[in-house]
Amino acid sequence: MRPVITLLTDFGYDSYFVPSMKGVILSLNPEAMIVDITHAIPQFNVRKAAFTLWASYKYFPRGTIHVVVVDPGVGTSRRALVIRSRNYYFVGPDNGVLMMAAGDDGVVEVRSIESGDFMRPVVTSTFHGRDIFAPVAAYLSLGLDPSLLGPRVTDPVVLPGIGGSVSRGVASSVIIYIDHFGNAYTGIRANDLEVLGLDYGDELRINIPRRNVDLRVRFLRSYGYAGEGEALALINSEGFLELSINRGSFASRYDVKEGDEVTLSVIK
Amino acid sequence: MRPVITLLTDFGYDSYFVPSMKGVILSLNPEAMIVDITHAIPQFNVRKAAFTLWASYKYFPRGTIHVVVVDPGVGTSRRALVIRSRNYYFVGPDNGVLMMAAGDDGVVEVRSIESGDFMRPVVTSTFHGRDIFAPVAAYLSLGLDPSLLGPRVTDPVVLPGIGGSVSRGVASSVIIYIDHFGNAYTGIRANDLEVLGLDYGDELRINIPRRNVDLRVRFLRSYGYAGEGEALALINSEGFLELSINRGSFASRYDVKEGDEVTLSVIK
Amino acid sequence: MRPVITLLTDFGYDSYFVPSMKGVILSLNPEAMIVDITHAIPQFNVRKAAFTLWASYKYFPRGTIHVVVVDPGVGTSRRALVIRSRNYYFVGPDNGVLMMAAGDDGVVEVRSIESGDFMRPVVTSTFHGRDIFAPVAAYLSLGLDPSLLGPRVTDPVVLPGIGGSVSRGVASSVIIYIDHFGNAYTGIRANDLEVLGLDYGDELRINIPRRNVDLRVRFLRSYGYAGEGEALALINSEGFLELSINRGSFASRYDVKEGDEVTLSVIK
Repeated sequence: MRPVITLLTDFGYDSYFVPSMKGVILSLNPEAMIVDITHAIPQFNVRKAAFTLWASYKYFPRGTIHVVVVDPGVGTSRRALVIRSRNYYFVGPDNGVLMMAAGDDGVVEVRSIESGDFMRPVVTSTFHGRDIFAPVAAYLSLGLDPSLLGPRVTDPVVLPGIGGSVSRGVASSVIIYIDHFGNAYTGIRANDLEVLGLDYGDELRINIPRRNVDLRVRFLRSYGYAGEGEALALINSEGFLELSINRGSFASRYDVKEGDEVTLSVIK
Repeated sequence: MRPVITLLTDFGYDSYFVPSMKGVILSLNPEAMIVDITHAIPQFNVRKAAFTLWASYKYFPRGTIHVVVVDPGVGTSRRALVIRSRNYYFVGPDNGVLMMAAGDDGVVEVRSIESGDFMRPVVTSTFHGRDIFAPVAAYLSLGLDPSLLGPRVTDPVVLPGIGGSVSRGVASSVIIYIDHFGNAYTGIRANDLEVLGLDYGDELRINIPRRNVDLRVRFLRSYGYAGEGEALALINSEGFLELSINRGSFASRYDVKEGDEVTLSVIK
Repeated sequence: MRPVITLLTDFGYDSYFVPSMKGVILSLNPEAMIVDITHAIPQFNVRKAAFTLWASYKYFPRGTIHVVVVDPGVGTSRRALVIRSRNYYFVGPDNGVLMMAAGDDGVVEVRSIESGDFMRPVVTSTFHGRDIFAPVAAYLSLGLDPSLLGPRVTDPVVLPGIGGSVSRGVASSVIIYIDHFGNAYTGIRANDLEVLGLDYGDELRINIPRRNVDLRVRFLRSYGYAGEGEALALINSEGFLELSINRGSFASRYDVKEGDEVTLSVIK
């Protein structure tokens, strides 16, 4: 079976950065199948990269090697990591970008990449994606034992968790992710619905104080059950309570940004 | 031969949607070769997606499975289709996005996807690309007989055709597509040229009333035969009479949009 | 070993142009592994395409076929070229876009593509990427001898070189490339540093007269050694002296463009 290597960066689609990484990988392992997660992470947005990885890593074949390069600390003393989880490998900088996904899968082993044997002969200070992470991923895809890369790490950087408080009728959370369509994900999960006492057809009052948003929406099963241009709430494909507009952008209409605090009250 | 699966969506390049679909496909068929048509279809623009598919599907190897997810009706009662045409499979929602290409190739069989056996175990209401269309495409690439997916459909949604009226010296049409360079495609085809009485070097008067456009351009063989910044008309690579500017954008300069009515008169 | 074909165009990610090329290639050689360099070259920017190719071509496996379609002269009398260099093939228009990379690798042979035997049956005037360059690349990946494509060319178009004057303490150059992060590359190379007398920690005075830029920055090893938002200079991954802002965009803050003249003076 051909090993899959995924790439997730903030390098954009307009530069030579990503193809240089792919060239390095294919030169070491011509049988690797490289799949782009995305290269359009907003620059240095470690949190958005972590969420994007978490939302997609689990659909790939067992043994896939996920490489993330959102790395504002490149060339400084920040560590470079390989994480082995129950089903995958994760390769990238030690800034928390890997741990949301790796922790979700179950971390088995974390190593600091220190051996020069699996890097490019010359390692620049500004492009570890090409000079360290790409070749390490290629060697892993060829069967490299991660213990040869460097010592164990027991304290990888972990980002603060996603959450919120949920009680009967009221939930408080933040906007954790805004997607391509302008849908705004809260941190409220599908399994909080019972505590919240929310059923299809119920109305929700949404407050986002920083944006002066105070509106009532229906909780529906999918976008198309709302009128065109109508705001709604639903449980989305990742299991989060999401604020949306049918055929429109919730984030644009209400100027909502990731990190905004949001309160939801069930109206029965 | 490795089966090719193409993906065409309005999911953008910045989200976890497309890689999740790819992960699902590769988990079911690690030998699939996945090719992106584009993921930058303007949101919910079924017509633009249909044209883009039509313009590219036919260059792929026989047996290629084309998956389209431009699907504002996801999670509602709209049907999910598999179409077998003379040389290809098409998979996507029943909103007309598949039929321009499938009809061009020659439809053999249309099926509604209803059997849960070839979907992901949990089907969400908002991401059928990942939960239905991706696994169905993967199973088709493994040889699945489409009759196992669901019943025959005899009335798939079909979009209105592209056309225009052409007589000696005058043609009326609409702008059917604006490409990456701002070239504006009319619905006038190469084989209408004789009726139109148009030869290389002739001048055309272009009227686009909604944009107050009234200009004279030369009909030339390619962009580089016009002066830099000069507007021109040509027959493009898809066989349409196209309005263009050499090294510029016709659509930007004249604020032209898809759907605008246009009249062309030959000046001899 | 599966042959690699790379694609570098200004076709964007939103059109049917790139997938049509991929379909043509896979129809002729289903075993080809196609890798995108980028399709987001600014339209008709031959110089930026040439630099992007130069910066990435060398990381691909020996024998890789690099196809470039940034081709404002398509359909005119400009020649179509295949270049064989010491380790690679290059395919594209004769406008200088290939020669920076090919010359760097060492040109062995340049041919004009004239034989119709390796083109699509119908060659349009506006899409040689699909009708000529893609099939030629596919045939090369199947082992085609380039001498069958057409006659030798001894005078391919070559773009003016990248350079600058460097003396003890002062360097004059231009901004040769602005990357995805807004980093501005000068033409000053790492091996000019000794002549320039520049050491880590030194200060540099930067003058960009066209933008009224006159500032002092530190010369550091990587971005993260500067304060957040601090301008700095460093030697980047491609070996150029680069002007940057830690976690910011030098080009945006100072409105700098490619082609701007820049003077750098060492302050000791």
